[in-house]
Amino acid sequence: MEHLTIKDIARLCETSVSTVSRVLNNHPDVSETMRTKVLEIMRENHFVPNNSARSLVIRESDLIAVVVRGLTNPFFSMLIKTMEYAIDAYGYAMALHQISSSEDELKAAAQLEREKRLKGIILLGGRFNYSPMEVAAINVPFVCCTYTNTFGALDETRYSSVAIDDMAEARRAVEYLIENGHRKIGALIERTDGGSISQLRYEGYIGALEKGRLKPDNSLVACAGSFEMADAYTATKALLERSNPTSLFAISDSMAIAAIKAAADSGIKVPDQLSIIAIDGLEQSKYCVPTLTTLEQPADDLARRSVDILAGLLGAEIENTHVFMETRLREGGSVIELLKPNDP
Amino acid sequence: MEHLTIKDIARLCETSVSTVSRVLNNHPDVSETMRTKVLEIMRENHFVPNNSARSLVIRESDLIAVVVRGLTNPFFSMLIKTMEYAIDAYGYAMALHQISSSEDELKAAAQLEREKRLKGIILLGGRFNYSPMEVAAINVPFVCCTYTNTFGALDETRYSSVAIDDMAEARRAVEYLIENGHRKIGALIERTDGGSISQLRYEGYIGALEKGRLKPDNSLVACAGSFEMADAYTATKALLERSNPTSLFAISDSMAIAAIKAAADSGIKVPDQLSIIAIDGLEQSKYCVPTLTTLEQPADDLARRSVDILAGLLGAEIENTHVFMETRLREGGSVIELLKPNDP
Repeated sequence: MEHLTIKDIARLCETSVSTVSRVLNNHPDVSETMRTKVLEIMRENHFVPNNSARSLVIRESDLIAVVVRGLTNPFFSMLIKTMEYAIDAYGYAMALHQISSSEDELKAAAQLEREKRLKGIILLGGRFNYSPMEVAAINVPFVCCTYTNTFGALDETRYSSVAIDDMAEARRAVEYLIENGHRKIGALIERTDGGSISQLRYEGYIGALEKGRLKPDNSLVACAGSFEMADAYTATKALLERSNPTSLFAISDSMAIAAIKAAADSGIKVPDQLSIIAIDGLEQSKYCVPTLTTLEQPADDLARRSVDILAGLLGAEIENTHVFMETRLREGGSVIELLKPNDP
Repeated sequence: MEHLTIKDIARLCETSVSTVSRVLNNHPDVSETMRTKVLEIMRENHFVPNNSARSLVIRESDLIAVVVRGLTNPFFSMLIKTMEYAIDAYGYAMALHQISSSEDELKAAAQLEREKRLKGIILLGGRFNYSPMEVAAINVPFVCCTYTNTFGALDETRYSSVAIDDMAEARRAVEYLIENGHRKIGALIERTDGGSISQLRYEGYIGALEKGRLKPDNSLVACAGSFEMADAYTATKALLERSNPTSLFAISDSMAIAAIKAAADSGIKVPDQLSIIAIDGLEQSKYCVPTLTTLEQPADDLARRSVDILAGLLGAEIENTHVFMETRLREGGSVIELLKPNDP
């Protein structure tokens, strides 16, 4: 039997070589009639394209996976759309995969890579403590978006990251309370340890207190155990029962919104009796009463830069890169000045 | 040249027929070494599996696409996770595709179908006015989740739907205000027409007024032009400047949250001077001050039932089906009783 070329198939189908090529590459821009005809004739003639059977079986894809940890995190919703546009603009397609906060993003990414033959991965939210062994299962470039490997043992050249400096930004939030005359400052966090974003922001809180010569006091720290509003509400209620801070630093906007509710239900007025500041800058925190004062993360820039870096890595134009971005203070009505230090 | 079978390939690779089959089907459960070896030997021998070249080129997938319209709609976030679990449980994989409210879900679905060879589609959010011509581009079963074709000309046998009865539920919300003694009842909607969910809920509002022998008054209707909180805020502010309703029906929880904020900023106390009720049952509306009274949609049931129906259609066990589900009144603190009709 003669070994046919793609030109022979095109001739037999009375079509162009490029149409046959589009069928082989499963390109959408071919009519169903022509697709069927080309495949029919290929089959009848036992055609195998000369660039190997492999390209037929395992189709090369241009997929970039975005693994989102924490499905209902409203902050992440803001980033996903920007990522999709940016990924499209680079000529790739986005495969969105959402996992719950209890699942492991590295395992999910490794499994996706096995199943989908990805070009690269963006991890939107994740742990700060990866080990080299854990990431060995990832064989494509990946970017950690909104976090970096602060508590891990990963070589900087092994991954990329785009995030805010969580500890520095938390310190900045608490310093804002201190500048406004607050001395008894509570913290609403998930936990104090665990190599998490909560630990980093808690350490920023402690750092600001120490810099302001204020003694850290455990009874002022509310550990919610999660980022859920229900848990933040309960933890704040307990905090307000056992102590009387004049202000509260919450590690996320949605936790702060729950804290405002807990204060209201405890008969404590925000900001008159309790000032509250947070980090995130969610749309919804503009509509709580009072409007939340918060450090707004550069959501669009975080998303776009993550895609830029991944595209650069895939084009072999850059090496793995680590970027810290700054927040912007969005003043609402949830913080009042107690007394002005350094008043003239 | 002899025409080889899959058994011949297995023998040449010194492996089992099922391993070769797994390679052909691109199953992940094959070592990379074996996969490479099998493909190598297939290529050397110009192997074409006898079940047609087509299955090689256009791989049959088990993908169900979920097209989500309105990326940052927090109500939809609640449904997506449930859908993913249910789709997995049926042995399919979910391809999540998010589009903005300005994009057309049918066009997006048709394009996805061309690109990905889907088994079926769930449209999460969409228009109520499809024409037969528009859906002609969709060649697989599809389920409209959270809406149905009220304003369209589509044959019921052409699609499936799982939704609440928007008009009836809106009527129920407004009747609740009437039962609580309210006579001057405003509405916060997107628009009064356009074949949208907003039109349906607006018509339910009008229906309840008429049933309660209350005269509809255009000056009590705030058209925000979108479902965005910013637009809902502005529209409510204008409403409260031009009239003084004792209560307000908002067509969504997030619009109601913005309305509470607008009232507060206008110096109007909720619920003392203005009662507010909505439809949705978002997590976040439990944490506004006061807690929102709302008709909670059965989010989990809507999601699960949509997947059940699609799986039934794919298994040819059922015909296209249409289901209305009921909401549940979640009493918060945003509605007060003005005077009790029928008091003993």
